[in-house]
Amino acid sequence: MLEKNFRKIIKEKKNLDMLLALLQWDLETKTPEKNIKNLSFLIGELSLKSYNLTTSDEMINLIGELKKVDSLTPILKKELEILEREVNKIKVIPPEEYQAYSELTAEAQTIWEKARENNDYNSFKPYLKKIFDYNKKFIEYRGVETDVYSAILDDYEKGMSIDKLDSFFANLKAEIIPLLNKIIKKQSTDKKLLRFKVDKETQKNFSMEILNYLSFDFKRGVLDESAHPFTLTVNRDDIRLTTKYIEDNPFSSIFSTIHEGGHGIYEQGIGENLKDTLLDDGNSMGIHESQSRFYENIIGRSRDFWMGFLEKSIYKYKELNSIEFNDFYKSINYVAPSLIRVEADELTYSLHIMIRYEIEKGLFNGEYNFDELPTIWNKKVKEYLGVDVPSDSNGILQDVHWSCGLIGYFPSYALGNVYSAQIYNCMKKDLDISTILKNGELFKIKEWLKDKIYQYGKLKEPNELISDITGEELNSKYYIEYLKEKYSKIYKIAIN
Amino acid sequence: MLEKNFRKIIKEKKNLDMLLALLQWDLETKTPEKNIKNLSFLIGELSLKSYNLTTSDEMINLIGELKKVDSLTPILKKELEILEREVNKIKVIPPEEYQAYSELTAEAQTIWEKARENNDYNSFKPYLKKIFDYNKKFIEYRGVETDVYSAILDDYEKGMSIDKLDSFFANLKAEIIPLLNKIIKKQSTDKKLLRFKVDKETQKNFSMEILNYLSFDFKRGVLDESAHPFTLTVNRDDIRLTTKYIEDNPFSSIFSTIHEGGHGIYEQGIGENLKDTLLDDGNSMGIHESQSRFYENIIGRSRDFWMGFLEKSIYKYKELNSIEFNDFYKSINYVAPSLIRVEADELTYSLHIMIRYEIEKGLFNGEYNFDELPTIWNKKVKEYLGVDVPSDSNGILQDVHWSCGLIGYFPSYALGNVYSAQIYNCMKKDLDISTILKNGELFKIKEWLKDKIYQYGKLKEPNELISDITGEELNSKYYIEYLKEKYSKIYKIAIN
Repeated sequence: MLEKNFRKIIKEKKNLDMLLALLQWDLETKTPEKNIKNLSFLIGELSLKSYNLTTSDEMINLIGELKKVDSLTPILKKELEILEREVNKIKVIPPEEYQAYSELTAEAQTIWEKARENNDYNSFKPYLKKIFDYNKKFIEYRGVETDVYSAILDDYEKGMSIDKLDSFFANLKAEIIPLLNKIIKKQSTDKKLLRFKVDKETQKNFSMEILNYLSFDFKRGVLDESAHPFTLTVNRDDIRLTTKYIEDNPFSSIFSTIHEGGHGIYEQGIGENLKDTLLDDGNSMGIHESQSRFYENIIGRSRDFWMGFLEKSIYKYKELNSIEFNDFYKSINYVAPSLIRVEADELTYSLHIMIRYEIEKGLFNGEYNFDELPTIWNKKVKEYLGVDVPSDSNGILQDVHWSCGLIGYFPSYALGNVYSAQIYNCMKKDLDISTILKNGELFKIKEWLKDKIYQYGKLKEPNELISDITGEELNSKYYIEYLKEKYSKIYKIAIN
Repeated sequence: MLEKNFRKIIKEKKNLDMLLALLQWDLETKTPEKNIKNLSFLIGELSLKSYNLTTSDEMINLIGELKKVDSLTPILKKELEILEREVNKIKVIPPEEYQAYSELTAEAQTIWEKARENNDYNSFKPYLKKIFDYNKKFIEYRGVETDVYSAILDDYEKGMSIDKLDSFFANLKAEIIPLLNKIIKKQSTDKKLLRFKVDKETQKNFSMEILNYLSFDFKRGVLDESAHPFTLTVNRDDIRLTTKYIEDNPFSSIFSTIHEGGHGIYEQGIGENLKDTLLDDGNSMGIHESQSRFYENIIGRSRDFWMGFLEKSIYKYKELNSIEFNDFYKSINYVAPSLIRVEADELTYSLHIMIRYEIEKGLFNGEYNFDELPTIWNKKVKEYLGVDVPSDSNGILQDVHWSCGLIGYFPSYALGNVYSAQIYNCMKKDLDISTILKNGELFKIKEWLKDKIYQYGKLKEPNELISDITGEELNSKYYIEYLKEKYSKIYKIAIN
């Protein structure tokens, strides 16, 4: 009876989440300008409903009663743990603030989109400030007084903190910068080799084909377009990816499609047994990004993958016929400091993340303020990447995350890279990946990942998951080795 | 206080309707296959909520109390009238049946879509039968025992009945068939003149341009794609149109875009003063179709419109350069009996409607049954249009309406034609339409229509509206005159 009531209330909660996801989707892909405020308001109202349900006496009582029961299934036990964590996190927030924040982040995304389009940081600034302020306040409601940012980081990745990330990035920097400098000296491929015009419809067909090839299931998902690519889960049978087509840069949409595809394949692979439970969702954001970054880079920028795919694909661009395969491979792995994170090569990518990380840290500890943010951004880009930022659209405004309230999210990408190489290192022991890729049997890779990661959803904590697979905790050594090995080969550099 | 409570409950009802519209939109344009049942279920649940709200004691009391108040505004008075009509219509339906029906029609649309794609009437048949059965039952709950179909017709168009439509169609048939026969004998233009290939992206740009030209407001609306073009109102600031691009028939999407554009411009033109009221919606379906058919045909297939538009348009197809304007004009008014209603010319169009009308009538009076429907369809098409139906996809399955529960809707198109010519006859007295079209000042036409029709929303009954504009009730004479005049000119036929 107790469990039956629990399932009923969880079902209601999940239905509300589904509605919210659909409204979010609509807002980001379709809603006309004049209806944005209205729809954001509706999202705020529904969020409040979800808040009220989650923090209701009924819910809290049910958690308390169920926790007393012996012989709970591991699934139910974990659900209670996760739910209690969530309840404790939000019940300290006044409901009207919770609603206002949901409304704010819904609206802010479209404000950001316009600000980026018009290169107008100032129109976005007040929203950005409010979002950061709310995040700080919400953490402080929990009784955290110092080191708010560490608490935020821990929300995304259990156990993460400023200390850990500081040393992690220092290590990465020490290894990557020297390698990068060597590569830049040896750069030879034509940077513009893959810059040709392909109309949107053809790019779209190509993207669909590649997702299909990766074994994304279109009966349980869709691919659409948006200003900034993202993945959104409506429910386990409805995983929505977006990409962005740039007419004279067809490989931009390909890699962002593969990246989002990685997220999507993950969500589609969660075990049937977790259906209708709170565990029917990806693990931490770091683990999630490990899957997208794995597909985008370790698979998607590998020689073997393209050898297999180009042979089999139907929508292959005719321009590729006149390019030597080796030049093609070097082009998709062209290393050069550049402006846009999502288009950055594997080596400089982490430097982009570092910049976001340092700025978030500085905003929370009061070192930086919102007025000077573009200047700080541009300075850091110049310092770490040696590039001049021509406009805020290509600078501080390039990413959607902050507008959605994803503060503290960026480090997940760097963690994702590290997880992905560590997992890959194990996968290689079980699978002949080269042959699999050449034969286009990508489902074998998916099955391995499903077995090791996907099926568990949120049943394990991230550190538990990674230990079970690899026998050790998060370790950046594999990522650094992977980078060194791959790029020293491509650029014929001796590894010290 | 009374009125404040009323506004609050109406706001809640409208928010529910908005949610339902958004889910409906998603279902018809985006939802992946495996999530359709789930989403349909959610629509059923929300519909039940809306039902419960509409038929709640609070609502019924509020109506009763408010009706006692003297000096109600005309708006509030009309709202109460409409609401009471709705309450009386649905409160006799058991809630679980109301929910089941909403769920059924949500799901049936995607079933229909697949059935049409696969030319598989049988997979759709059980859904169709259930939908008709529910419609019959719902009417019978109201105490209607004989002539269920007339009651259904009256729901769409106050005052309509089998008797009226029988004589209306008989009249139309008597006038149109002889004209049609004369024309067919004189047919000369090349039917294939406008059949060339245009990629989807270009067609889309052209469609957007034409909507803009008609003065559809994209800040308050969008254009998208679907299997069957439709218009959906999320709320007054969010009117969504769809069209369907056929690669080797670029004018198909143009005319369906103009048609839906007519619906959309109407909805966008409803008076600001009706915002947040129950009158913020189009009038009867016949009036609504009069606006879409007016733009599609009277404007969209006129010589002057294309003279103005082709001169100004940017996305104009290059293939048009080699076509004489006169041949172009004759082509878009090419008259020939054909299979598909939405692509039919103005003359044969009403015959398509007649077939639907006769079949609906026959299904309700027991003359026909669902097993033999394709056969009956094919026989009637042969009889009235002289055409053999090659497949159910191009026959009985061609239209989405029945799957959404729109039984008794089809006659609205024929009524729409009649209304549109009658309204046009008045418009000509006020405006120099030829000059307006040649100069591309379409906003002037929109303003006239806004003044006479749009602004009132549901404030007037259809017969009141048409009398106020034209000084008489619905009269098919103008439509017949319009057809005779236009086509005798094009085909150089003497009018008796």
